Amino acid sequence: MNDAKTELGRKILKLKKQKSLKWADIAARITMSPVWTCALCMGQMSAEPQHARGIAEILGLDEEEEATLCEIPYRGAQPMPPTDPLIYRFYELVLVYGTSWKEMIQEEFGDGIMSAIDYDMLLERLPDQKGDRVKITMTGKFLSYKRY
Amino acid sequence: MNDAKTELGRKILKLKKQKSLKWADIAARITMSPVWTCALCMGQMSAEPQHARGIAEILGLDEEEEATLCEIPYRGAQPMPPTDPLIYRFYELVLVYGTSWKEMIQEEFGDGIMSAIDYDMLLERLPDQKGDRVKITMTGKFLSYKRY
Amino acid sequence: MNDAKTELGRKILKLKKQKSLKWADIAARITMSPVWTCALCMGQMSAEPQHARGIAEILGLDEEEEATLCEIPYRGAQPMPPTDPLIYRFYELVLVYGTSWKEMIQEEFGDGIMSAIDYDMLLERLPDQKGDRVKITMTGKFLSYKRY
Amino acid sequence: MNDAKTELGRKILKLKKQKSLKWADIAARITMSPVWTCALCMGQMSAEPQHARGIAEILGLDEEEEATLCEIPYRGAQPMPPTDPLIYRFYELVLVYGTSWKEMIQEEFGDGIMSAIDYDMLLERLPDQKGDRVKITMTGKFLSYKRY
Amino acid sequence: MNDAKTELGRKILKLKKQKSLKWADIAARITMSPVWTCALCMGQMSAEPQHARGIAEILGLDEEEEATLCEIPYRGAQPMPPTDPLIYRFYELVLVYGTSWKEMIQEEFGDGIMSAIDYDMLLERLPDQKGDRVKITMTGKFLSYKRY
Amino acid sequence: MNDAKTELGRKILKLKKQKSLKWADIAARITMSPVWTCALCMGQMSAEPQHARGIAEILGLDEEEEATLCEIPYRGAQPMPPTDPLIYRFYELVLVYGTSWKEMIQEEFGDGIMSAIDYDMLLERLPDQKGDRVKITMTGKFLSYKRY
Amino acid sequence: MNDAKTELGRKILKLKKQKSLKWADIAARITMSPVWTCALCMGQMSAEPQHARGIAEILGLDEEEEATLCEIPYRGAQPMPPTDPLIYRFYELVLVYGTSWKEMIQEEFGDGIMSAIDYDMLLERLPDQKGDRVKITMTGKFLSYKRY
Amino acid sequence: MNDAKTELGRKILKLKKQKSLKWADIAARITMSPVWTCALCMGQMSAEPQHARGIAEILGLDEEEEATLCEIPYRGAQPMPPTDPLIYRFYELVLVYGTSWKEMIQEEFGDGIMSAIDYDMLLERLPDQKGDRVKITMTGKFLSYKRY
Amino acid sequence: MNDAKTELGRKILKLKKQKSLKWADIAARITMSPVWTCALCMGQMSAEPQHARGIAEILGLDEEEEATLCEIPYRGAQPMPPTDPLIYRFYELVLVYGTSWKEMIQEEFGDGIMSAIDYDMLLERLPDQKGDRVKITMTGKFLSYKRY
Amino acid sequence: MNDAKTELGRKILKLKKQKSLKWADIAARITMSPVWTCALCMGQMSAEPQHARGIAEILGLDEEEEATLCEIPYRGAQPMPPTDPLIYRFYELVLVYGTSWKEMIQEEFGDGIMSAIDYDMLLERLPDQKGDRVKITMTGKFLSYKRY
Repeated sequence: MNDAKTELGRKILKLKKQKSLKWADIAARITMSPVWTCALCMGQMSAEPQHARGIAEILGLDEEEEATLCEIPYRGAQPMPPTDPLIYRFYELVLVYGTSWKEMIQEEFGDGIMSAIDYDMLLERLPDQKGDRVKITMTGKFLSYKRY
Repeated sequence: MNDAKTELGRKILKLKKQKSLKWADIAARITMSPVWTCALCMGQMSAEPQHARGIAEILGLDEEEEATLCEIPYRGAQPMPPTDPLIYRFYELVLVYGTSWKEMIQEEFGDGIMSAIDYDMLLERLPDQKGDRVKITMTGKFLSYKRY
Repeated sequence: MNDAKTELGRKILKLKKQKSLKWADIAARITMSPVWTCALCMGQMSAEPQHARGIAEILGLDEEEEATLCEIPYRGAQPMPPTDPLIYRFYELVLVYGTSWKEMIQEEFGDGIMSAIDYDMLLERLPDQKGDRVKITMTGKFLSYKRY
Repeated sequence: MNDAKTELGRKILKLKKQKSLKWADIAARITMSPVWTCALCMGQMSAEPQHARGIAEILGLDEEEEATLCEIPYRGAQPMPPTDPLIYRFYELVLVYGTSWKEMIQEEFGDGIMSAIDYDMLLERLPDQKGDRVKITMTGKFLSYKRY
Repeated sequence: MNDAKTELGRKILKLKKQKSLKWADIAARITMSPVWTCALCMGQMSAEPQHARGIAEILGLDEEEEATLCEIPYRGAQPMPPTDPLIYRFYELVLVYGTSWKEMIQEEFGDGIMSAIDYDMLLERLPDQKGDRVKITMTGKFLSYKRY
Repeated sequence: MNDAKTELGRKILKLKKQKSLKWADIAARITMSPVWTCALCMGQMSAEPQHARGIAEILGLDEEEEATLCEIPYRGAQPMPPTDPLIYRFYELVLVYGTSWKEMIQEEFGDGIMSAIDYDMLLERLPDQKGDRVKITMTGKFLSYKRY
Repeated sequence: MNDAKTELGRKILKLKKQKSLKWADIAARITMSPVWTCALCMGQMSAEPQHARGIAEILGLDEEEEATLCEIPYRGAQPMPPTDPLIYRFYELVLVYGTSWKEMIQEEFGDGIMSAIDYDMLLERLPDQKGDRVKITMTGKFLSYKRY
Repeated sequence: MNDAKTELGRKILKLKKQKSLKWADIAARITMSPVWTCALCMGQMSAEPQHARGIAEILGLDEEEEATLCEIPYRGAQPMPPTDPLIYRFYELVLVYGTSWKEMIQEEFGDGIMSAIDYDMLLERLPDQKGDRVKITMTGKFLSYKRY
Repeated sequence: MNDAKTELGRKILKLKKQKSLKWADIAARITMSPVWTCALCMGQMSAEPQHARGIAEILGLDEEEEATLCEIPYRGAQPMPPTDPLIYRFYELVLVYGTSWKEMIQEEFGDGIMSAIDYDMLLERLPDQKGDRVKITMTGKFLSYKRY
Repeated sequence: MNDAKTELGRKILKLKKQKSLKWADIAARITMSPVWTCALCMGQMSAEPQHARGIAEILGLDEEEEATLCEIPYRGAQPMPPTDPLIYRFYELVLVYGTSWKEMIQEEFGDGIMSAIDYDMLLERLPDQKGDRVKITMTGKFLSYKRY
């Protein structure tokens, strides 16, 4: 179902390279965050018309491609368990920290979950003498299990 | 191989409840972070003797249990895909954001990964009028793929 | 992690039978819905103290069992795909109607999901000359994908 | 086996968008329900000639496509577990509520199942101050296990 | 959930051997078919009180075991794919004949399924000079897919 | 390896529809049973030359297609577990009746299996006031486990 | 279902070691082949009374254990893919030679299979200067696919 | 990686049929065994130049195809568990006899395995009044586990 | 995502053969190790411009192919468990030695892992009278689990 | 089948800790390598009597435990994919380097494999200013695929 969005993602990666653009540049053009903009271009988010417009302009996409950016994807093309080491490390965090997230979030908020829908994320470089670090900050709305 | 650490984890959850302690209380006693302390108690980390000492004192563990805290676990008891909704949401983030993490980290750092070993995490409550949010901040050392 | 809740579930099924109680009877005692009450007793929900109190009284549970009802479960003990034909039929609905739910909900609400957390359900018997029907009514809060 | 129906489904989604039609519009044309009409167009149901006729007219399909709507599909193209979050939430309901459905349906009807074949469904928007809700009403004929 | 029914099944196999009974003997006692009676004893069906009574008498079961026969099982303990060659052959029939069953049943009855709930089966020995044959006769109610 | 047989199967389904033939019509032409003829056309059996001849004549196949009917297939293209509800019901029968088949066949014949190779099947419509039934009669040669 | 046969297998391995017996010794006592005798003791075959008698005498088994040898097993306890290297090599042969077995057996015998039920096997040491070899000779009755 | 070898295998099966050749004929031409020759043509072995030469001549292959025969394959295209009944029976032998092979080979040779690399196989027809049998003789070098 | 790198890998294998080059030859040209050079060409590593330059020159690649060598791959195309016997043996080493690696590395270094990123490998032929040996030497930086 | 060896492994880990022994100490006592000695104690190898003797003496094992060390294990208890990060990294090496090992070993040795049976391994600490490294050296006999 996502063939068009996947194919567009590949094309965007090429265009981005040719034009020496960074995700931050594309994001700045549409006044959105780089992570969300990247996820959109990788075919995992749906744009509002003005976002699609801005991206089409900066990258030189045609009308159909612009429309494709607005389509809601069938999410989750990532193979599981991930075979790529960079992505696998996040999977490993779920293996190792899953129960801790559960115990700590419930201690603080009670019975419920952290939303992965009403959710945002920030990715930064943290300079460090012993080697720079990747810093990821995420916030998700806490949703209480309804008792009815 | 982890039977002792798993069993101890269950006991700690009970003791913690009986004594009305929070992870932050236990962590404060050993001057470590709450997330790491929780992961240690859930059987996913290994303590140094002084940490085990402090936890044994605050919870009232015996010597063998104290030693068990110091043992290095066979990590990753979490079933995959997670059946629990709270934990599943993190798995879903890997499905949805996996490729974006890869593209963004590589754009910034080049070919390599974010370490899940030289890694730390902070979990906070973010007050929000539309509903409080879970905030997770993680940093992991960037490791470059060696070319040899 | 759920051993206590699973074991309690079995005991409750026996007590319920011995006392000739229906889920509606137990639910009425705590002024909650039968579906939620049943899910709670089957170890998939967490009770507030007054609910646990009422159930303990009507079924004759001891204090520890009452506390067990209040514990937050590691949800999702159901084997997948379900081997039991009654439960499998619901799994089959996901196979057959999954894409239709996606297209229809998105047409109406835009990009997002129906919450399975802020969610309730009603189960009724619908008399029908050609054979009575099971009627299930569920509502879940629509959550919009955050664009950030 | 379903290539033709899957391909037709994609084409219908495009035509529907171009013509600014809603599932309810298409359904009204053939006097059927929107959910069934959507499931038919997504390649999961088989039409009777008059339904195919109506849909072909409103969308502008050719004869072969009209015939394709009447073909009985090999059902169940949905990947399991679903990778798309909207569809996954229904899968999660089976994980969490599977045993409750079993206990409650059997309490009321005895040994048997709710049919997923003699089955219908209604999908509505439920206005709610705290956020509108998706409301799904389904009925399925109860089928008793034959004792012979 | 089926521990009691599984354990009872093992005991019945032993008692049946000690008493040199055949499934036909047990079935005759309760005026039911041998296949259903065997499936009941193997923990896959639920008895009505009079059936449980008869089986308890002929085998010498106690009251609790008699009640266990009446309980509705969580069906489907059979590992899949079956590792036992006798059972695997039936699985192989699904692999080889699945599409033929679909085409032939639909040709005759239209869009729908053969019920596995309103279903019965007969197992016989068919004498044959080239080697006796197992003869299985099954009938299941045809259920039409509802169009709504 | 079966691409040619699979493709031919699709073509035969179309031709059969265009010519308004039933499996029984095609089978009658080659004096074979409808089930076997259908399984052959679906690419799961190999024809003898005279069968291929007859089918080619009635359907209008060319020489290469006729030869394809005679090829021995790599059997078992059916996905497992089956996603199509009609086919799944047979899989469910293995889940529910697997152990009963084993106990009953062994009681009657001793240690061995029912052959799925020296095997035949008949599919009929059984008129019934409460709804017509699918009737399947199968016989398979019993094969004793060799003791050597 | 095979707990008794599995446990007996372990006991036989111990007794065989204590008594310094070889499979050939046990097999000679009952005038059967060593492979079948070993498979019987490992819980994968069923004995006739005289075989069970002989094995009980040579190993010193009690009456219940003797009866256990006669029981028909639920075969196939071997995990797949095999984790043990010795057993895995046979699995690898299926991976590598599967299609060759199919083409060669069908070339010689036509459409059918080699029976794994009417089957026997011999295992020998083949002296060889470059290192002794394991020699396995197996014969299985060819079974033709029935055309009906 | 094996696309060329797989495609060549299909072509060889066709040519072999057109020229009415048997594996034994092709094998005789290159003075190798029929099983190895068949495995080579099915894309699971690598030829030495003179073997490829002979096969190219007898079947009429071009130079590139001849070279393809010499390439070392990525072995093991066979789906597991095998869906084809003929191949599945060998898989079943691993399920049923796996532990017996282990116990018997180790009794005779000590700790080690039978090589599946320094391995050969012979496939014959064994005439038998009760139905001819497939006879397979295999020898594999015994390799001792190194203790170091 | 790796289609271009995989396709290039196939082309390089052909060119390397045509030009009678060894991995060591290609590696020498860019002053890198043969293992890394091979992994790069097989699509599992990313080159720096000068490496891509050298490989393009020695093999005669065009500019786009040269750029493809510099792209960071989505790693891990290898099917698991490996079906190829050569690759499977390494998988088997993980099965057999996994726990030993864990115990020995932790004994020497404490809690942590051997990096598979800051990692290098050397592959040599070790002459040996009883048959030459493959010698693999690998070093990976030890990474301590952070306690925070 | 390995219960005794697994249980003994756990006991040895405790005894080794109590006696402050290193694998090198135990290995020195029996004049074997530390890796093999560790693998033996972890239940993955079989000892010769003198090795078992030495280990029993240094650790204080009883006669039955000494005999258990000599038993040949059913190898491969390691879960796959490994959940423990240290062990997973080796699995990842197979994912990333599998095809390179294949191409490089075959370039040097022709068609065959590196034995995992006639195999040895050395594990060392490699001091390094940027962080010490784990160094693993392994050699395995090359085995040529037999052409017959």
